Amino acid sequence: MPGTLFIVTAPSGAGKTTLVRGLLERDAKVQLSISYTTRVPRPGEQNGCEYNFVDVDTFRVLRDRGEFLEWAEVHGNYYATSRVWLKEQIALGRDTLLEIDWQGAQQVRKAFPDAVGVFILPPSFEELESRLRGRGTDSDEVISRRLLGARGEMRHVGEFDYVIINNELHDAIDDLVAVVRAARLRYDNQQARHPSYFDFLEQD
Amino acid sequence: MPGTLFIVTAPSGAGKTTLVRGLLERDAKVQLSISYTTRVPRPGEQNGCEYNFVDVDTFRVLRDRGEFLEWAEVHGNYYATSRVWLKEQIALGRDTLLEIDWQGAQQVRKAFPDAVGVFILPPSFEELESRLRGRGTDSDEVISRRLLGARGEMRHVGEFDYVIINNELHDAIDDLVAVVRAARLRYDNQQARHPSYFDFLEQD
Repeated sequence: MPGTLFIVTAPSGAGKTTLVRGLLERDAKVQLSISYTTRVPRPGEQNGCEYNFVDVDTFRVLRDRGEFLEWAEVHGNYYATSRVWLKEQIALGRDTLLEIDWQGAQQVRKAFPDAVGVFILPPSFEELESRLRGRGTDSDEVISRRLLGARGEMRHVGEFDYVIINNELHDAIDDLVAVVRAARLRYDNQQARHPSYFDFLEQD
Repeated sequence: MPGTLFIVTAPSGAGKTTLVRGLLERDAKVQLSISYTTRVPRPGEQNGCEYNFVDVDTFRVLRDRGEFLEWAEVHGNYYATSRVWLKEQIALGRDTLLEIDWQGAQQVRKAFPDAVGVFILPPSFEELESRLRGRGTDSDEVISRRLLGARGEMRHVGEFDYVIINNELHDAIDDLVAVVRAARLRYDNQQARHPSYFDFLEQD
């Protein structure tokens, strides 16, 4: 019985992290996708929990084998989303949620055409601006750059199956929980979960 | 902003009526589809609530105009599902739920390709049999005929988008609520509900 891959994309400031945390608290059958990284584990971090920790040589081997959907270097460390790891989790029946930007989402969709795409929007563009300003720590230039980036991200909303407008956090969590629950009820998923029942029903 | 049409189909004994009642109690934005009938209103029944009550001549005119998706004569009275009424409700933005058999569902799907199909299954065929027997009022012959009918209905489960297995009523109601909630979050529905926001996001 395969699991479902959920792709969650949002512009910075839409509240994605809080929303996803809310989902995980409500639905114990969803796990977060775990990235590969070459960065050193921080105290308390366990391999296979926060990240799959690998050394640079291993990372390069995996990358050159084409095992990654996407990878990036940030502050001298490598990070990647592993196609092979995701395939394995889905095959094991684990519903897995991947937070990723629109470009990554396009890559993932090619490799996982059955993935369910969810885009999170802020209540309005004005509200997004005020949320980004409200953090109070960033210069006008940084905020302008973030807004431009958010605008570029949001242009891709039409590539997603579901759109959640994060107006009230509680409602938006209910929305995300419903999307995940409904995905499990799709005919293909139910058939895969109850093969003998469906075989019996559909035989001639 | 258009509403969504939900088609709910189930074999006799799957618990459809209780499930749908549970949905309506939880989600005030869903209405039941209202059939046309030539039968005389019972005390307390209001035109446009339980049924759209019409006389036989009007019924025949509507039928001959092709306004009905399907119609039937039961105990000398006519009953019909009106394509025109449903189109109107959907156009008014009203999420409408239609309980109908698999043949009716096929007709509805032709006229409403965006309809969301939900099939309700009993926990197992054995459980269905014991539920039908448990009513205690029917002869073995009637029960056998019902089971055969249920089997014929269930063969069409693959024509539906979602499958809910009514194992625990409370879970099954949660399932149906989630399917309806998720349908409202589909990209097309959100875009239709928030046209100026989406126009702004997607303009060049």
